[in-house]
Amino acid sequence: MRQLKGKAVVAQGGGPTAVINQSLVGLVIEARKWRYITNVYGARFGVSGIINEDFLDLSQTTTHNLEMVAASPSSALGSTRVKPDEAYCARMVEVFQKHGVRYFFYIGGNDSAETCRIVASYARLVNYELRVIHIPKTIDNDLAVTDHCPGFGSAARFVTSAFACLDLDNFAIPGVFLGVVMGRHAGWLTASSVMARRDPKDGPHLIYVPERVFDTDRFLDDVERVHSANGRCVVALSEGIVGADHRPVLTHLQPESEFDAFGNVQLSGRGTLGDALSDAIKQRLGIKRVRCDTFGYLQRSFLGVISDSDSSEARDVGETAVHFAFNRQMNGSVAIRRTGDYSVDYFLTPLETVAAHTKLLPPEYLKGDSDIDESFRDYARPLIGTIPHFDRIIAPRVDPAAVEP
Amino acid sequence: MRQLKGKAVVAQGGGPTAVINQSLVGLVIEARKWRYITNVYGARFGVSGIINEDFLDLSQTTTHNLEMVAASPSSALGSTRVKPDEAYCARMVEVFQKHGVRYFFYIGGNDSAETCRIVASYARLVNYELRVIHIPKTIDNDLAVTDHCPGFGSAARFVTSAFACLDLDNFAIPGVFLGVVMGRHAGWLTASSVMARRDPKDGPHLIYVPERVFDTDRFLDDVERVHSANGRCVVALSEGIVGADHRPVLTHLQPESEFDAFGNVQLSGRGTLGDALSDAIKQRLGIKRVRCDTFGYLQRSFLGVISDSDSSEARDVGETAVHFAFNRQMNGSVAIRRTGDYSVDYFLTPLETVAAHTKLLPPEYLKGDSDIDESFRDYARPLIGTIPHFDRIIAPRVDPAAVEP
Repeated sequence: MRQLKGKAVVAQGGGPTAVINQSLVGLVIEARKWRYITNVYGARFGVSGIINEDFLDLSQTTTHNLEMVAASPSSALGSTRVKPDEAYCARMVEVFQKHGVRYFFYIGGNDSAETCRIVASYARLVNYELRVIHIPKTIDNDLAVTDHCPGFGSAARFVTSAFACLDLDNFAIPGVFLGVVMGRHAGWLTASSVMARRDPKDGPHLIYVPERVFDTDRFLDDVERVHSANGRCVVALSEGIVGADHRPVLTHLQPESEFDAFGNVQLSGRGTLGDALSDAIKQRLGIKRVRCDTFGYLQRSFLGVISDSDSSEARDVGETAVHFAFNRQMNGSVAIRRTGDYSVDYFLTPLETVAAHTKLLPPEYLKGDSDIDESFRDYARPLIGTIPHFDRIIAPRVDPAAVEP
Repeated sequence: MRQLKGKAVVAQGGGPTAVINQSLVGLVIEARKWRYITNVYGARFGVSGIINEDFLDLSQTTTHNLEMVAASPSSALGSTRVKPDEAYCARMVEVFQKHGVRYFFYIGGNDSAETCRIVASYARLVNYELRVIHIPKTIDNDLAVTDHCPGFGSAARFVTSAFACLDLDNFAIPGVFLGVVMGRHAGWLTASSVMARRDPKDGPHLIYVPERVFDTDRFLDDVERVHSANGRCVVALSEGIVGADHRPVLTHLQPESEFDAFGNVQLSGRGTLGDALSDAIKQRLGIKRVRCDTFGYLQRSFLGVISDSDSSEARDVGETAVHFAFNRQMNGSVAIRRTGDYSVDYFLTPLETVAAHTKLLPPEYLKGDSDIDESFRDYARPLIGTIPHFDRIIAPRVDPAAVEP
């Protein structure tokens, strides 16, 4: 089997995760072992590091430093929100040619997979032999083909832990609490809040995801119903919830919205959505204590909140990407197949099957308009792992009428 | 030594913490051993459980359940924001008389200590023998006399971990990031963000606490200076920052503010302050990528983010409260004395020395208007413990001019 010989470039795209550096390090340590890879370059700040020829020489990094980086959250190489078009990708291939790069590994979501697809197609067009492997990463868990995405399990662990403690907080000082969770199109991360609910009385009592049309009147009815019944109400809400016009609810609340290179409205990094819904609850339902936390950037790569399986798999997809590059001799995206409860296997799927696709929560995981089906637990539990144990006091009430002083 | 014989009531006041239930359980397990305490009642929802005679019989709780509760965040008995006046406290003493309660333990902050003071003074007035012990708890760390407060270390651990990962996030995708931290009058919790800074280039680059007057123009100058120098800027900001008029900056931004029973404006549970400052940075400095997270309720009792020393000491102050009630035969507030680096001792201080006092960050911990002095680290390190290790890549840059393809 003739092997391509040349340098490898690895880059990280999109939002950081708690385990994205496991993929980076799994890949680098493995790539350094193969004699066909003459050097491993890390592109700084995603694809922009490629066109700027801004590379770190990862052959000269100590294994110990790499292991420390693997355990660190966020994207150690830096990332970018740039969306490369054909011209941008052409420039990337030119840089690869100049540097003798024959292997391009891109760790990211569906936009990064799309970049891989364009780069691979341009390289074919100009007859430059280049192996392009996409390595899955996204807290949104919305990549097609793969059973789930590295980065999701740890973020979901944060969201589950958050709702567990926020529900205890709301139990201690009752009222309405809204927790706004990341998720533009897909509600996977918000859905994982259901894992915080151990007892039917536990919150979150209401869960809203972008897969269902959000109606403010219905939402207020739901909150009123739960609050009347329990004296309190905990709500999990995707930042990307959409109205009947299929536009994010946030765009209606915030006239001067900010848009990124992908044409997506900026959802995270401010409290607008939750604050507006809190105001609606206060004003229209007359409930006094209404609090909202927008989880923001804390949830995507919190230091020390790591799912074991997520961390292992993130490492594996990085290392496996190198194996696939040599053994399959084809481009593709590394995907995870669930083979048992719980075991997984990795395979390579064509870039086209992942690029720019979005996998939404399937209907069987949705329960009505404001809840997640219990079956979702079987899917999510092994990805999140066991969160720290917590409990409520089990003690009888004292009957004031039967008191002996 | 004649010992008072009767029931004990324990209640939890104010905001939940990650370790407040350690104090509860340390107290209950110890109190159940003393034959002078005929029963241990837990008042549900703080002092309101006392006037409503809403008690749990904690003598009938299993030790295992108690241990599970000890490890759980938030206030297991429920809490309250009620501020008892003389009449309210008189009613509490009446209930104590009716139920034969001779020991009142109240776990809370300086408002709870004030309640203890009023209750103790009313009991004396009506010649009802009652032992009143205040057990310190607050993430704000603003109680007088004690070296520090149980609950602070774990919340500070959350804040430190948060800024460590948010700084890595901001390094990966540069821009301005504001993190809004709890703290009405005292900046202890916000100050602990400095612990995330391992290297002088690390964020938070600017830290604003309520002990210094906040000036928006100066703030914008600071942000511009740091952003120009580093291409990015991470800011830690207390929600309670005040303007030159000594009123919270938030009250100027939010005309219809909500006030609690203590006359305090509601600071947490919405994104107003951070969003307004983000807008000012965008509009007046022309910086495009500005993000803000208001840490909100996540920071005060996050599941699994616990400082070991905080957890141990929270347990100890609960158990010690029972010892003091018997051995000292006087009312008071349990306080912590730092005896070494790192060791502590507990003592009882008169209720008057803690009630309604607020301990601000001393000037030696403040560095200019927008930073915390390095000396604060020696104070905070043992309280927070070691956060998970993280690292950046150490690798040489590739010189694009010296490339051999």
